[in-house]
Amino acid sequence: MFGELLARVRESAPLVHCITNIVTVNDCANVLLACGASPIMAEAPEEAAAITARSDGLVLNLGTLRAEKIPAMLASGREANGRNIPVVLDPVGVGASPWRMEAALRLLREIRFTVIRGNAAEIRALAGAFTPAAADAPQEKGVDAGDAPRGASPAAARTLAARTGAAVAMTGETDLVAGGGTLYRLHNGHPLMRRVTGAGCQLSALAGAFVAANRASPAAAAAAAVCALGLCGERAAARMGPQDGNASYRNYLIDAVFRLTPEDLEKGARYEMC
Amino acid sequence: MFGELLARVRESAPLVHCITNIVTVNDCANVLLACGASPIMAEAPEEAAAITARSDGLVLNLGTLRAEKIPAMLASGREANGRNIPVVLDPVGVGASPWRMEAALRLLREIRFTVIRGNAAEIRALAGAFTPAAADAPQEKGVDAGDAPRGASPAAARTLAARTGAAVAMTGETDLVAGGGTLYRLHNGHPLMRRVTGAGCQLSALAGAFVAANRASPAAAAAAAVCALGLCGERAAARMGPQDGNASYRNYLIDAVFRLTPEDLEKGARYEMC
Amino acid sequence: MFGELLARVRESAPLVHCITNIVTVNDCANVLLACGASPIMAEAPEEAAAITARSDGLVLNLGTLRAEKIPAMLASGREANGRNIPVVLDPVGVGASPWRMEAALRLLREIRFTVIRGNAAEIRALAGAFTPAAADAPQEKGVDAGDAPRGASPAAARTLAARTGAAVAMTGETDLVAGGGTLYRLHNGHPLMRRVTGAGCQLSALAGAFVAANRASPAAAAAAAVCALGLCGERAAARMGPQDGNASYRNYLIDAVFRLTPEDLEKGARYEMC
Repeated sequence: MFGELLARVRESAPLVHCITNIVTVNDCANVLLACGASPIMAEAPEEAAAITARSDGLVLNLGTLRAEKIPAMLASGREANGRNIPVVLDPVGVGASPWRMEAALRLLREIRFTVIRGNAAEIRALAGAFTPAAADAPQEKGVDAGDAPRGASPAAARTLAARTGAAVAMTGETDLVAGGGTLYRLHNGHPLMRRVTGAGCQLSALAGAFVAANRASPAAAAAAAVCALGLCGERAAARMGPQDGNASYRNYLIDAVFRLTPEDLEKGARYEMC
Repeated sequence: MFGELLARVRESAPLVHCITNIVTVNDCANVLLACGASPIMAEAPEEAAAITARSDGLVLNLGTLRAEKIPAMLASGREANGRNIPVVLDPVGVGASPWRMEAALRLLREIRFTVIRGNAAEIRALAGAFTPAAADAPQEKGVDAGDAPRGASPAAARTLAARTGAAVAMTGETDLVAGGGTLYRLHNGHPLMRRVTGAGCQLSALAGAFVAANRASPAAAAAAAVCALGLCGERAAARMGPQDGNASYRNYLIDAVFRLTPEDLEKGARYEMC
Repeated sequence: MFGELLARVRESAPLVHCITNIVTVNDCANVLLACGASPIMAEAPEEAAAITARSDGLVLNLGTLRAEKIPAMLASGREANGRNIPVVLDPVGVGASPWRMEAALRLLREIRFTVIRGNAAEIRALAGAFTPAAADAPQEKGVDAGDAPRGASPAAARTLAARTGAAVAMTGETDLVAGGGTLYRLHNGHPLMRRVTGAGCQLSALAGAFVAANRASPAAAAAAAVCALGLCGERAAARMGPQDGNASYRNYLIDAVFRLTPEDLEKGARYEMC
């Protein structure tokens, strides 16, 4: 199934508008090109909506946020919502400052997201904060918490998915995607992905391409993106030589996306649904 | 001839001030270092003119434009014009939003450019819009349009060159440079250059170095830069291994510029003038 | 000794907050990950202090400075000072514009720096300007100036160290670190480091990790960082193939930091103290 979703990305070559951070913006553009999509990066409030209007997908990434970018994100998000263009949120470091959390909450209140992609800490922080009264709601410490000491609990992902209507991708040692009444547990990936900056940002950009090309099934599209990058992370690791480090790994990861075929993804994907 | 122009870049090591975008700024700095020039990136309106004043060339790139950068570009452009420092414009995505087009037109009205470097869509959009009355002028749909279905028509490049006094480099499947009464058709390059972000931005930076080192012949300098990067694109493609993708290609492209000798360029350049 | 300092970086995995430039921010993040630290990049005045408060080190880099970043740097610097979190200043291009110099002087007046890392021109400019009356003080043209025609004079570094209380790392053909009454002369490094953008920025980020993990001995920590990157520069050069250029060198440099062990550093470090 995931193979088909990738095939559709390569066939339809969606244009993905990213309002993203200064650290990994080049990687996001190159990973979009690698998967067959086209990137367009634009962040001025004066033109953000116009750029979104001609795009097939929108990715809002909160890394290195500046105040001036918030109205751009809101304008682009509203434009996307009005045109049924899928929107991905990457709440980078949302728990790191109250100001960034406030920006994320405003986006969640004013924009309908198709996918939210973050690590366990980010997804938990958002799930806990999104409805003010829910900060200590029982589901945050619910049944799943006990069996997942390293952050793989689906409770926060399910909660956030239920509250926002988005498919929620929570990545870490185990990756989870919750949405549309389904939960995916995805087992591809490699520890080196945490030794390079931007693997998360790249995944969110990739998810933007996958949902843009597969609008009918956002949870499956997000899960396919998670699986695809995880599988590429494994292939990149297999390519590492004795002198290679995280800089070479960064290149190998994007190279692997460039080379990944639908058949590769179909065969290499390791996941279960429940 | 192009070999000599590259030799002069390597000998004179021009300092090139770039006001550029967040996506490819690192690539632009490294490609300038690769060709023997020195980059200086600065974009605050408070210091832009002072930085330009000590530079040998200026490159203004409209990617990820923010409003605050427009006065910086204007101040640097005026400073450069006053000191006869060559100025390159890269109108990235100028057709993607009315606001960006308005910014480009303001730059064209207030600054004298030495080189304008863009893809066919960008050059056409500028040529059509620069003189308000010319939006649907006959030359936009002129004699050359028929024989160049994929964007290689020189009409827009010639029009924009005539209206601005700049050498206009229009890159795509075939690359054209119009200026000083000459038209170059350049045949180097490789399709992989479109699968990596920033090849166009790098070319504009490189053009900044070439015109800074070869002030007497801006059209030839721009054509040499186009040819040089195209040849490097071919060499980078020849180096691709079975696991390499666009991330490795990005490195190989800059590496090839680093290794390119005047003799290589002289021998490998494929172009005609008319 | 330097080996132990690196071991402590890898063991303690400090979180290093960088307010840095758009050119090399990705390299800085990846070099921090390579040495075992964690990067966090954030530059909005609204959250800068909150981010610093949860970090172990702070790096302020003046490249591509924008006015809005100055209050962020001041807020983060004060927060760090109040919490005894080490702070590194990289005065990129401080001599290139009066506005940038004024920003640097304001930072020096309002923040207590642990390390200042720059090239000879930058350190001299700062040492000359920091106390207005000292612009032409005798120490700027003192006894050491004669024996170091290429910028290796320790006078400026010692002066700036004395005036600020920071350890001052002045890098170039010979690298010097002055601070705590000690002067290190460090002999690792490779000329290719000047052909890639960002080696200086990476060094300042690395210094942030080293002082964060070794608070008791900032001068030694800064010297160890200089030595470590210099040694990695040598190893990266040894790895260059006949088609490699500065883009590959950029990767090899970070890769070498990733692979560098405390034993490697202990054995490969070439320096003297006086």
